[in-house]
Amino acid sequence: MRAIDIIERKRDGYELTAEEIRFFIQGYAEDRIPDYQAAAWAMAVLLRGMSVRETIDLTLAMVASGETLSLRRLGPIVVDKHSTGGVGDKTTLIVGPLVAEAGLPVAKMSGRGLGYSGGTLDKLESIPGFCVNLSPERFYRTVAEHGIAVVGQTADLAPADGKLYALRDVTGTVPSLPLIASSIMSKKIAGGADAIVLDVKVGRGAFMETLPEARELARRMIEIGHGVGRRVTALLADMNQPLGRAIGNSLEVCEAIETLRGEGPADLRGHCLALAAEMLLLGGLASTPEGARTQLASLLDTGRALERFRRWVAAQGGDPGVVDDPARLPQAPVQMPVPAPRSGYLAGLDARTCGMTAVALGAGRETKGAPIDHSVGIVLHAKVGERIGQGEPLFTVHARTAQEAQAAAESLLGAVAWSDAPVERGPLIYEILR
Amino acid sequence: MRAIDIIERKRDGYELTAEEIRFFIQGYAEDRIPDYQAAAWAMAVLLRGMSVRETIDLTLAMVASGETLSLRRLGPIVVDKHSTGGVGDKTTLIVGPLVAEAGLPVAKMSGRGLGYSGGTLDKLESIPGFCVNLSPERFYRTVAEHGIAVVGQTADLAPADGKLYALRDVTGTVPSLPLIASSIMSKKIAGGADAIVLDVKVGRGAFMETLPEARELARRMIEIGHGVGRRVTALLADMNQPLGRAIGNSLEVCEAIETLRGEGPADLRGHCLALAAEMLLLGGLASTPEGARTQLASLLDTGRALERFRRWVAAQGGDPGVVDDPARLPQAPVQMPVPAPRSGYLAGLDARTCGMTAVALGAGRETKGAPIDHSVGIVLHAKVGERIGQGEPLFTVHARTAQEAQAAAESLLGAVAWSDAPVERGPLIYEILR
Repeated sequence: MRAIDIIERKRDGYELTAEEIRFFIQGYAEDRIPDYQAAAWAMAVLLRGMSVRETIDLTLAMVASGETLSLRRLGPIVVDKHSTGGVGDKTTLIVGPLVAEAGLPVAKMSGRGLGYSGGTLDKLESIPGFCVNLSPERFYRTVAEHGIAVVGQTADLAPADGKLYALRDVTGTVPSLPLIASSIMSKKIAGGADAIVLDVKVGRGAFMETLPEARELARRMIEIGHGVGRRVTALLADMNQPLGRAIGNSLEVCEAIETLRGEGPADLRGHCLALAAEMLLLGGLASTPEGARTQLASLLDTGRALERFRRWVAAQGGDPGVVDDPARLPQAPVQMPVPAPRSGYLAGLDARTCGMTAVALGAGRETKGAPIDHSVGIVLHAKVGERIGQGEPLFTVHARTAQEAQAAAESLLGAVAWSDAPVERGPLIYEILR
Repeated sequence: MRAIDIIERKRDGYELTAEEIRFFIQGYAEDRIPDYQAAAWAMAVLLRGMSVRETIDLTLAMVASGETLSLRRLGPIVVDKHSTGGVGDKTTLIVGPLVAEAGLPVAKMSGRGLGYSGGTLDKLESIPGFCVNLSPERFYRTVAEHGIAVVGQTADLAPADGKLYALRDVTGTVPSLPLIASSIMSKKIAGGADAIVLDVKVGRGAFMETLPEARELARRMIEIGHGVGRRVTALLADMNQPLGRAIGNSLEVCEAIETLRGEGPADLRGHCLALAAEMLLLGGLASTPEGARTQLASLLDTGRALERFRRWVAAQGGDPGVVDDPARLPQAPVQMPVPAPRSGYLAGLDARTCGMTAVALGAGRETKGAPIDHSVGIVLHAKVGERIGQGEPLFTVHARTAQEAQAAAESLLGAVAWSDAPVERGPLIYEILR
């Protein structure tokens, strides 16, 4: 078998065999197939597509390229969650302790932010002392004792995916449904998940900007999951405007704490309850979505989820005092309110612009490994559908300097669309594919 | 400007600007753009295509990546010829001295054989002493004094093309019309040609197997030529069966000498006269194809073209004695006749199988730089349309060992299609695009 023949077959639109896919992925992972051949192959896959069968085989080949975790000793069914990334998405910080409190062990590997999309690890690290690099033993022990642990992805899981993703990033071959779907699913499967809830974001602040694209990606991931014997549920969730009201690491932790306390923005709470309910359903801890939501809402409203969060933070070395005193989180020196330049209804609040503004403030990064500032970010005082009077605070910018705050304010005002007539907000969750 | 943006624009089907193409090709030639980005780009070009304008800009960018020769001091119009490669194609050995004798200077850079396709340099080197590596000064002087010189391609001409071609060869991105057309034309233009006659082969022993594909490639090259102010004529010539009767380096030199003497196979003579006539027309040395052919045929029949060949061989250090005594060319130890297994009309003689059989005998190479044996090859005693009786010699195999000869014989018999009824040979030249 030769790499060039496999490239040519895909180039010419043929379906690759499982053996060909394994040969190519294993050869690439082991440096026998060079980057330039993998790049040509990835472009051919992007432009020619892959069948469901090929995508499943690709996923399995990437899983087989490294270690696989078994989390069975943590519980009968290990349920994982994956978000495709967005702006203001602090869901894991809320859903994690919430489902852990409901009895579902959470042994989660998360990622860092890149571009307009934030990352759970960065958010957690804004809590003083919080450590996301636990040894495998401590990771398991923390989950066993406290019901939850969240750590960084290890390079040992699906290393072919890690290598291929880095190559796709610099060769224009990221936006391929089969490649995205198999990349996500290979990491989840190698990570030991029996069941997976996918939080697929749709809109201006998401990788998938339209509902049909997002649905197609979700379906592809569900097909992969079924193909390898995993239960998968996918939520298609709106990301045209940011989720919740806080963007930026400390600010998002603060909002997560409020939400865990039974407060917080309605959209964020609703989204977290929907996700957590699907996790309980897959984990066999609830029999109906409605029953699950009722149970979970009570865990938020009674403060039990927040207490689980406090234990979890302490277990990973973080300062549990942030729960009662959010001022212990890093605070930006400049906090500048941005007044509404007119009165009216918010008709749009471009999530991507909000995300990129936060990156410009220092809350995120343009390139992997760049440092970030946990303190900076944006608080939104109005969201789509809400009415606001001229001069009332529209945003508060948390910045390192007044100059940076001013630049952010201008950028944010450009992200707003106004309407004189009342505006209806679209649905928060478009569909749930089970 | 960033390489990735250019890859993505081509991936998404956009037309690249001249500036983007220059940036990419120059960056690649200068090692600022890595192989893996060029590979992804080449696959995107292959699958998305290029407009005529892009192809012209690509050609110019590759020309600009290195030196360009000026051959103006050799004559008012420098006419070059290029064959897309085939089996038994010894045309340059005949057409070169023929048009030189007619007054058109021939300053030609040629290539080596690869796969089933032979190369002019290899054929010339079967003449004892013949040197294809002349210094630029000696190259010019030889043309000035003897009207003709043929040397190897220098790496200084269109180096971006050389680098990109090597990458395409290992990434499944060879069969792209815009990439093939710009590759050929960039070398011809950098080589200083004012006018070019393209010998585009069509059929089983050619890169383009069908007439529409070959016509499309020819048109693309003509458009490039016109776009950069060159006159271009393209012949679409049959390569379903080998050209002439000899395949293999010494054997082809021998057949070229016969043809220059006014003898040789009719198809080879006809093809050479057609090509040479087009060169004289482009060079302004003839006003009609018919007039040119008459003049050229007389140069063959009077032996003047052969005398020019003799002078040329001597000028490049070769043994001119081969003209009168072909036995001075390398001779294979085994010469095995292969009798016809049945009587009938030859309906087909697969050129690719013939070419690959010659490669297996040692006449060609599978990989660049591999050594070849000048003595071995195949002589065809019958061609398509001819009748042959059972037991009459069909081929003579020239081999290093009886065993290799036997294997070749079996392979060649599989290349023959038979008919009981008379078979008409298709045209030798399908079309001439001027």
